[in-house]
Amino acid sequence: MSFETIAWQDGKVKMLNQLLLPAEIRYEVYDEFHQVAEAIRKMVIRGAPAIGIAAAMGIAQGAITLPNERTAFLQGLEHINQIMAQTRPTAVNLFWAIDRMKRLVERQIDTLSISDLKDRLVQEAQTILREDIELNRRIGEHGARFVRNGDTILTHCNAGALATGGYGTATAVMRIAAEQGKTIRVLADETRPYLQGARLTAWELMQDGIDVELITDNMAGHFLKSGEVDLCIVGTDRTAANGDVANKIGTYMVALAAHANDIPFYVAAPTSSIDLSLANGDSIPIEERSAEEVTRIGNTPIAPHGARARHVAFDVTPARYVTAIITENGIASPPYPFTLAPLVQHNNK
Amino acid sequence: MSFETIAWQDGKVKMLNQLLLPAEIRYEVYDEFHQVAEAIRKMVIRGAPAIGIAAAMGIAQGAITLPNERTAFLQGLEHINQIMAQTRPTAVNLFWAIDRMKRLVERQIDTLSISDLKDRLVQEAQTILREDIELNRRIGEHGARFVRNGDTILTHCNAGALATGGYGTATAVMRIAAEQGKTIRVLADETRPYLQGARLTAWELMQDGIDVELITDNMAGHFLKSGEVDLCIVGTDRTAANGDVANKIGTYMVALAAHANDIPFYVAAPTSSIDLSLANGDSIPIEERSAEEVTRIGNTPIAPHGARARHVAFDVTPARYVTAIITENGIASPPYPFTLAPLVQHNNK
Repeated sequence: MSFETIAWQDGKVKMLNQLLLPAEIRYEVYDEFHQVAEAIRKMVIRGAPAIGIAAAMGIAQGAITLPNERTAFLQGLEHINQIMAQTRPTAVNLFWAIDRMKRLVERQIDTLSISDLKDRLVQEAQTILREDIELNRRIGEHGARFVRNGDTILTHCNAGALATGGYGTATAVMRIAAEQGKTIRVLADETRPYLQGARLTAWELMQDGIDVELITDNMAGHFLKSGEVDLCIVGTDRTAANGDVANKIGTYMVALAAHANDIPFYVAAPTSSIDLSLANGDSIPIEERSAEEVTRIGNTPIAPHGARARHVAFDVTPARYVTAIITENGIASPPYPFTLAPLVQHNNK
Repeated sequence: MSFETIAWQDGKVKMLNQLLLPAEIRYEVYDEFHQVAEAIRKMVIRGAPAIGIAAAMGIAQGAITLPNERTAFLQGLEHINQIMAQTRPTAVNLFWAIDRMKRLVERQIDTLSISDLKDRLVQEAQTILREDIELNRRIGEHGARFVRNGDTILTHCNAGALATGGYGTATAVMRIAAEQGKTIRVLADETRPYLQGARLTAWELMQDGIDVELITDNMAGHFLKSGEVDLCIVGTDRTAANGDVANKIGTYMVALAAHANDIPFYVAAPTSSIDLSLANGDSIPIEERSAEEVTRIGNTPIAPHGARARHVAFDVTPARYVTAIITENGIASPPYPFTLAPLVQHNNK
């Protein structure tokens, strides 16, 4: 990894400003938790795991400035947690991170001094980052077995290091394959309307010296049919118990084109994104967002004045198009109703 | 039709400036054939049939300014034809139109005065326009039988009135269905990288009061799976004898998603675009264009500095995904090797 998404630095939180990518590479250094909260809200950092890490670091940073008197400390911490919870209220990892920090305090408040507890909170935030990087590396190691020397990999959106503490999920497979000495080439879908592929995936693979070429989303089918692509790897926001995969809009069309041309289609999925309570993808809510994000690119209008548009942000890829699901605990293959649960439950052993 | 793509107006050629759409609606009026040639070259007008019509009108306009002395007239006309031929040297319809004007002169030069011949050239250019509109209306009438009241139609790129003398090919089906009193709704793919769907298709359907919503190309699969779409209609650049269809990049992925969800996928194809000399789509050359058209939108860079990209302009949709091919002479259904040829040969009867 040639860049850091987020780091703890002498009591400060340092993060790469993703709003400026790829035009400018700027690290922001925040020494006050309100700034971290604002950075999460404004999407200076984005991606579910990265948001969780940022929230934990923000809480740690706020905690160390609190008084060492127990009641004042606990009241101050509650206030910090509330501010963090309001930054991206639909981000599951945000609440997961807040809860983890809260539980640490509950467990240790009667045995440690407040001063020692502050140190433990700072350590815990760094542990969350380290665990995320380690988890992604494990996804990469499991997935890299599917990548041969000389392969071309097609990916969609940014299941990348920028969305995580490091390595990414789909991109971890690419990075580990490259670390193993395999020569790989990546075709990255630009991923309209937000262009995460063009702005983020292309950037982060270029930073790590991985050969990447950008294509428009509608070119993926042609390249999958042409024989130029050996495998597809994408990330996921949420995977159901039967292996149906919710991911960024457009993933479904890539999977269809891969299936039609007998190209393997892999999903890199931390077990935290697998929801065994969902029988299948039909019950996954599909977010519709502002039409303006389709009729404009950045601030430039691309459609007639007054044109209406639809903006569906995610789609669901049926399990039958998914060759395998790559988790940090190993690989699930069809039939997913039998293979996913053991990998998820592995965490509770 | 609430607008004209191109018209002959008192010895002048009037055309809608498509470079300015959809931000500005401006008709250019050219009174000199060099201006018409320059407009074709600069893509003020684009689309195969529209280019042919513009070339014929430019030739007529140049011809009427030539001397009435036979040798000078023929030399002058040859010069005009040469200038027209250089405007878009890969456009088949350009040469078809030049040839048609040339043949008229060859047939009539010995029987008409030069002055009368000039009138005939002006009439011929207008006939080419009228015939194109009539042909498109016939495509629309044949295709409208597939459209029921209340249907939602998904389309890709701009097989529209702006690419033809009027009505368009795929859009003729929509317009005739609407003229028949059917209420229809259109989902238009934006069609990266050139955004013909966002800039042109959305604009021209809005002009004609047809309900249109814009989507990004990668959303088509979701809408085809959701049950919101009743049929797809697209145009074609070139169709092979077996029914394989070359069209704007992304058409193949739409066809795959339609097929996977049992949604009919129709291709509107003037018989002039059906090439019976091609056994199948494998031998259709696929144009690769400048990577800059992918890494920028208009003048705005969307990818990292130095990012590489691929720009494949067309793809080939295998005949097995095509429900029917709609021509001006009727409908071809599978097996296309038996049904396409009679429709093409109909023109020679």
